[in-house]
Amino acid sequence: MTEIKLEKCRIAVDAMGGDYAPKHEILGAVAALREDHNFEIILIGDKEKILSAAGDEKINLDEKMILHTSQVVEMHDKPAEAIKSKKDSSLVVGAGLVRDKKADAFVSAGNTGAVAAASTLLMGRLKHIERPTIGSFIPSESNATYLFDVGAFVDVKPQHLFEYAILASIFVKELYGIPDPTIALLNVGEEDEKGNKQVKETAELLRNSKLNFIGNVEGRDILKGKSNIVICDGFVGNILLKFGESVPQFMKYLLTQHSKKSLYEKIKIGLFKSTLKQALSPLNPDLYGGVPLLGINGITIIGHGSSSPLAIKNMILRAKEMYDKNLLQKFEEALKIYAVTK
Amino acid sequence: MTEIKLEKCRIAVDAMGGDYAPKHEILGAVAALREDHNFEIILIGDKEKILSAAGDEKINLDEKMILHTSQVVEMHDKPAEAIKSKKDSSLVVGAGLVRDKKADAFVSAGNTGAVAAASTLLMGRLKHIERPTIGSFIPSESNATYLFDVGAFVDVKPQHLFEYAILASIFVKELYGIPDPTIALLNVGEEDEKGNKQVKETAELLRNSKLNFIGNVEGRDILKGKSNIVICDGFVGNILLKFGESVPQFMKYLLTQHSKKSLYEKIKIGLFKSTLKQALSPLNPDLYGGVPLLGINGITIIGHGSSSPLAIKNMILRAKEMYDKNLLQKFEEALKIYAVTK
Repeated sequence: MTEIKLEKCRIAVDAMGGDYAPKHEILGAVAALREDHNFEIILIGDKEKILSAAGDEKINLDEKMILHTSQVVEMHDKPAEAIKSKKDSSLVVGAGLVRDKKADAFVSAGNTGAVAAASTLLMGRLKHIERPTIGSFIPSESNATYLFDVGAFVDVKPQHLFEYAILASIFVKELYGIPDPTIALLNVGEEDEKGNKQVKETAELLRNSKLNFIGNVEGRDILKGKSNIVICDGFVGNILLKFGESVPQFMKYLLTQHSKKSLYEKIKIGLFKSTLKQALSPLNPDLYGGVPLLGINGITIIGHGSSSPLAIKNMILRAKEMYDKNLLQKFEEALKIYAVTK
Repeated sequence: MTEIKLEKCRIAVDAMGGDYAPKHEILGAVAALREDHNFEIILIGDKEKILSAAGDEKINLDEKMILHTSQVVEMHDKPAEAIKSKKDSSLVVGAGLVRDKKADAFVSAGNTGAVAAASTLLMGRLKHIERPTIGSFIPSESNATYLFDVGAFVDVKPQHLFEYAILASIFVKELYGIPDPTIALLNVGEEDEKGNKQVKETAELLRNSKLNFIGNVEGRDILKGKSNIVICDGFVGNILLKFGESVPQFMKYLLTQHSKKSLYEKIKIGLFKSTLKQALSPLNPDLYGGVPLLGINGITIIGHGSSSPLAIKNMILRAKEMYDKNLLQKFEEALKIYAVTK
């Protein structure tokens, strides 16, 4: 049964989070509100800076949208310390608003570790979940591939990877309309006997569950889109995601090097640039609406520090969609079912 | 002091190893001998098949080059079992030749696990080495980046990663002329406090050694060439290497998809194809002479199952170079020095 929502959805946006804060946050928020009128945004951060940046962009910001905070968690801050010492930061206040039911979701392009830690600490975890997880859309030939975990925790147990699979399965089903998404374990070979202890024990848990587990996939299978959900620990996932994100830059480097070989090649590359840019546009992470932190008792979406206004807009709209589709309730229902198989 | 070598170097080539065996192995061997006359090749495998494949290619093969074996280790064979049950396979016989000093190096495009296991078991390990390692050249902006380990072992201890760093350091120094190669640990962040236990403990060992350790690098730093040597366990390395190798295929897919958008784009992509192929040629793994198995008491180079004749040729020439440069002796000297820091 879907709960009927009478109040307007309120999304808290960390206006001091990203590298271009608060400018990109303001532009992203305004763009999101243009696309969907049916929610409210709370911009959290230094009121004066927010109003000034809005002025620079000729945006007439309603002051009531702003919740003033005096501190900022920096990218180099250690998460645990920052949460303790910067209680009046946009990041901590944003997560607190969701805990206090004064906001329905929190969006931040700030320090990933601090956003994840503050959200987990303040909002709490869902029942049956020991470790929340951050997942990412990965461009692939199937156009429906999601990698969990991409860096919430680096030392995990098989049970945690199993929890990731449950959460990912619901997330992908509900948000991408894939009825029974396939789940695979990232491994050094497809055969069951391959891999380290962690993978083998997780495979056992997945095989005994009702999830649509298809076995192991290798590094080469991700971009082929062999599985909708690829499960790994945050250490592997984070390294892989960052490596993947560096690929377009390296392609650019190789093309620049090649263009130095002759004027003819330089001209050819110049003429082809726009086509290449369009063809490789699915690689742009700004399109995918950030990475959700799943397993917490609230909605949090985390973005890159370098998030563009487009990225912030998509993060906000993704948070709204998670709220509209009652994701938290669906996670709880799924955890009740799957937790039985433990 | 460099040992003076009176005898001609002999390289044992597993003629039944790769997916296109023995054809690619024969073509690669012939091409290698054309480039360097100063060594001998022993082609190991089914004599009849080798002669027949050579005939198909109009190659007049000297029968004395062939060492007949009756069995073949298949790609799906389990390494440990295959070594026991297929003692007259090209793979086991090849590794045995090096052990018996009847060959100076072994080259195979066969079952990676089985080549590594047979080489380790038959040739033995170098003193101070608990775990041998397989390393791979990675194309990067510095054009001098090597990833160790890419899949020899998936469950390792910090001491093993430290051993990889010693071996990799000598390998890169001697074979690529980089006097004091930089060494970094692959991690989820650059800061010392980031990462899992394994990485933190390995960092401690590296910091206390005389190796040129520069700290942590992230997934995004590999293609930038931030470090000459990137150290990780075989689980992470194997997944990353295979992911990287799948990138060109995915680029091709994206371009094909884009070409479907209009005839104009299709024509543009068609015209640009050769330039793109040339520009991305550094991504071709066939250029890099396979992956060496380091830490064993012998020289073994392992190639992809799909190795082209060019790849086989480069693997043979790489093995010859390792022999010419007395790599084994240099490993032993380095291990004596660095092992003291334990």
